[in-house]
Amino acid sequence: MLRTTKTEFPVDKVRRLLEPGPIVLVSSAHKNATNIMTMGWHMVIEFQPSLVSCVISSANHSFEMIRRSRQCVINVPTVELASTVVKIGNCSGRDVDKFAEFDLTPAPATQVRAPLIDECYANFECELVDASQVKKYNMFIFEVVQAHVATAPKYPRTIHYRGNGEFMISGENTRRYRKLFRPEML
Amino acid sequence: MLRTTKTEFPVDKVRRLLEPGPIVLVSSAHKNATNIMTMGWHMVIEFQPSLVSCVISSANHSFEMIRRSRQCVINVPTVELASTVVKIGNCSGRDVDKFAEFDLTPAPATQVRAPLIDECYANFECELVDASQVKKYNMFIFEVVQAHVATAPKYPRTIHYRGNGEFMISGENTRRYRKLFRPEML
Repeated sequence: MLRTTKTEFPVDKVRRLLEPGPIVLVSSAHKNATNIMTMGWHMVIEFQPSLVSCVISSANHSFEMIRRSRQCVINVPTVELASTVVKIGNCSGRDVDKFAEFDLTPAPATQVRAPLIDECYANFECELVDASQVKKYNMFIFEVVQAHVATAPKYPRTIHYRGNGEFMISGENTRRYRKLFRPEML
Repeated sequence: MLRTTKTEFPVDKVRRLLEPGPIVLVSSAHKNATNIMTMGWHMVIEFQPSLVSCVISSANHSFEMIRRSRQCVINVPTVELASTVVKIGNCSGRDVDKFAEFDLTPAPATQVRAPLIDECYANFECELVDASQVKKYNMFIFEVVQAHVATAPKYPRTIHYRGNGEFMISGENTRRYRKLFRPEML
């Protein structure tokens, strides 16, 4: 899955990658510095505009970088990056240049200054559109303004966190229940 | 997984079941009626108090029931219930008594009037603590006030929605990355 070919992806369909609940990497840029954090608390909240809500602890170095730059990229890593995902969560951008430290490739985004992480399966360029819940809940609401998704494999093997150092790795993907859906409920 | 033995579970640890991102069933009660809806958009936002944010479309019959009763139960189904989960999402509580229609067992909760769905792996009793984002985003913030989780199996096989009738079924669970975590980052 590392450094695969990607294609533009419709922003109103990012639920395809985010709704199953993977751990993501959030990249940011502010004042000539970049950073990456590991994030587990996120959800899609609207298709169009494509809105994603997430919680970023104010203890994270990324918190102020994202709050001030009003941008980030949500990157979806696969299981090959699991050790890196943990190590990124272990250290702070105050002390470490995470792209260099973890040998990740920053690729230019098209709509934001924050870099894409090239080794991830999907990259969602985000603009902060609502910071009203940041003070109370550390909750940010982003609009996905551009999306890039790997052309293969069809289904990524994503990692999903349970706390306490335990991960669930995504399993079988199936359309076997599709015939049960009423068309407007898909 | 149907009608298994359950035990009380610490509310500050519901991330164990919710953070991996499964589709959930939300049960509610209002004015002598009960209802169930299928929900994919939820995230943990705080450990203590145990807060969960979710999006419930105002088109759902459950929307007004939950907004008015200020309560619900978030139930985590396993793959054995996948067909039922789809069918619950296909119909409305306006027309159907979903517990009866789908042969699900309403069990009494301890802190709320909304019933637990006995056939689900986990049941989280919730009180609505913040409705300030309901008008703008259909976003509810609940506090989990009591949690019940099956004693076996250790890991449920949950279903995760990708849109377009496709599900991902949870795969391997692993602690193999645990040794990489700094203790305070678990």
